[in-house]
Amino acid sequence: MENFTFYSPTYFAFGKDTENDAGAYVKRFGGHKVLIHYGGGSVVRSGLLDRVKKSLDDENIAYVELGGVKPNPRSGLVYEGIDLCKKECIDFVLAVGGGSTIDSSKAIAAGAVYDGDFWDFYSGKYITEALPVGTILTIAAAGSEGSPDSVITKEEGMFKRGATGDAIRPKFSILNPALTQTLPPYQTAAGITDIMAHLHERYLTNSKDVEVTDRLIEGLLLTMIHEGPRVIADPNNYEARANIMWAGMMAHNNSCGVGRSQDWNSHNIEHELSAEYDCVHGAGLAVTMPAVFKYVYKHDVMRFAKLATRVWGCQMDFDNPEATALAGIAALENFLKSIGMPLTFAELGAKEEDIPKLVQALCYGDGRPGYIQGFVKLDTEDCTKIYKMMV
Amino acid sequence: MENFTFYSPTYFAFGKDTENDAGAYVKRFGGHKVLIHYGGGSVVRSGLLDRVKKSLDDENIAYVELGGVKPNPRSGLVYEGIDLCKKECIDFVLAVGGGSTIDSSKAIAAGAVYDGDFWDFYSGKYITEALPVGTILTIAAAGSEGSPDSVITKEEGMFKRGATGDAIRPKFSILNPALTQTLPPYQTAAGITDIMAHLHERYLTNSKDVEVTDRLIEGLLLTMIHEGPRVIADPNNYEARANIMWAGMMAHNNSCGVGRSQDWNSHNIEHELSAEYDCVHGAGLAVTMPAVFKYVYKHDVMRFAKLATRVWGCQMDFDNPEATALAGIAALENFLKSIGMPLTFAELGAKEEDIPKLVQALCYGDGRPGYIQGFVKLDTEDCTKIYKMMV
Repeated sequence: MENFTFYSPTYFAFGKDTENDAGAYVKRFGGHKVLIHYGGGSVVRSGLLDRVKKSLDDENIAYVELGGVKPNPRSGLVYEGIDLCKKECIDFVLAVGGGSTIDSSKAIAAGAVYDGDFWDFYSGKYITEALPVGTILTIAAAGSEGSPDSVITKEEGMFKRGATGDAIRPKFSILNPALTQTLPPYQTAAGITDIMAHLHERYLTNSKDVEVTDRLIEGLLLTMIHEGPRVIADPNNYEARANIMWAGMMAHNNSCGVGRSQDWNSHNIEHELSAEYDCVHGAGLAVTMPAVFKYVYKHDVMRFAKLATRVWGCQMDFDNPEATALAGIAALENFLKSIGMPLTFAELGAKEEDIPKLVQALCYGDGRPGYIQGFVKLDTEDCTKIYKMMV
Repeated sequence: MENFTFYSPTYFAFGKDTENDAGAYVKRFGGHKVLIHYGGGSVVRSGLLDRVKKSLDDENIAYVELGGVKPNPRSGLVYEGIDLCKKECIDFVLAVGGGSTIDSSKAIAAGAVYDGDFWDFYSGKYITEALPVGTILTIAAAGSEGSPDSVITKEEGMFKRGATGDAIRPKFSILNPALTQTLPPYQTAAGITDIMAHLHERYLTNSKDVEVTDRLIEGLLLTMIHEGPRVIADPNNYEARANIMWAGMMAHNNSCGVGRSQDWNSHNIEHELSAEYDCVHGAGLAVTMPAVFKYVYKHDVMRFAKLATRVWGCQMDFDNPEATALAGIAALENFLKSIGMPLTFAELGAKEEDIPKLVQALCYGDGRPGYIQGFVKLDTEDCTKIYKMMV
């Protein structure tokens, strides 16, 4: 196991009606004037925004609002939020929504106390200072509620890039599974896929002797395989939603990813798709994951076979471990299809003729050196082949 | 899933040589004058204490020392530590040792800023304020390095009782698996048993629809079953020690215990044994766990059968689930025996004729109402029968 540090100081309040305590938590973590940041109309229509505002009123906490966050959140709204924070002397950013809203909130929180362009953080600069952020999560997916990460798309060039720093870890996150019950099935399934991707990208590397994190990841994947179909069959199944919601946080706060190498190339390869076609991130991952895994599995057949047997219940083929490894990837594809996810470019609205452009952006965009490095180094030729496997 | 809050703000530094950063971490978390608290001679003989003092010297941090913590740490030394903290204006308590040293440090930290008797906290008062605590862990066992809990034995009456509060969660914990390599096999096995007990006591209850925490607990138990024998066979196996050490933290920071009922009666029943005979806590648990489980399993046969099949690899007997449940308990006993743990009163130095006294202390000690409540309520008659099963 490699040396590591682990730090996850977020206070989690989980369960029914917990959003009504938002004001008390903002107060506890030092907020006096809040930017409430959210997305489209669903948090308004559902009455959630009103409940949150009431809880702030109850604590005599002032606030301003900034809605309009879109999936694959854009730099333009971040700049707007930063200006608003400075103008209004905001000292706390409260995200009400899913991963996109939380990521946008983190970017605003970092930019509001930084003199330069906030995009510096999305070009490699570590975030050491930010306004405190709190979250009220409405989609179990990105894990941003417990992570130090944020992903933003730069409108100029449509680059999708990530930033990180302990300073943007949420001070508190409110997780009420009931808030996710109104999500459409496609969004729910995309969230499930995103969570499973976070687990696969921590598991499918060539680390050895990392049994504890292997077992934790397997346990969370087994949870998703059990709960995913239950929630697709019955969107109002609170218990299934609750299990998925906690699994989503645990999948990405890195307690199951420490001390080992990780491989984020399914995510990297997907980011170009959602940046180009504005597709749902989780749906894009359903397309990229199987292709990437089929392309790289020969670099560690036994690890892929381990996942296949322990998680997907495949029988180990001791004469032909490759067959077991491939059976595991096929089982993942079948599962994703069963919950309504796409598996091809066509289903996603992506086009084969765009592949050279996608590869260019992937391997050279924003200063990359002509390849992406993970468990296996993938150059432009590799990435071209991988995109073609999705067609 | 029940509503819950989860908070684990400890900063973990994990891996080889990390103890050399102790001074830097004390500084980062605001310490200026430190009480270094430790146990017997091993941290002195191994040179660990000198390395820790050097790292404090390097940061110009002053310190005083208080050694002498014994297993099942006593109230007497806690009072001494509290007096020392007040006299020397200590503002940080640094524990160098195992769970006993950390628990004693937490008690001192709470008592040093409290006007009353620190035992109030061990009689039910929640700890809201304490000096900051840091730890350098030398035994993977108690999980105290990431928990808000402390267990102390009151010398007057030899009551062993627990206290809790977020204020005593360590600010940082340094986990170097190499520091555990010099532990004698019996201590190592007792630590493994303690970790497995923390997992069993979270798992073996009548909670329903808690798949995510079930799976996490199962994953950690499977890790212990894989790594335990490896470290007993080769005490210098760093990788096995590393996996056990992270599993020990994860087993007890409650990320796998949230949203469900828990049952701490194997621990409660053991506490009287280690209070009376001063036996090693983990060894005591090896004796109490199987007896308690055999006594209560009929209250939820399917849960015990689930553990037996998923963790111990037992075949489910669909005509007779009780047989599967019992096979799982037998597998636990065999495992504990295989790593050198006792299974009976005699091996532990406990005496059958003391059972009435043990039951009296267990069910009535320190204000208890004549029974202990867990997944199943156990009165004096139940507890007598359980102790007799260990003879």
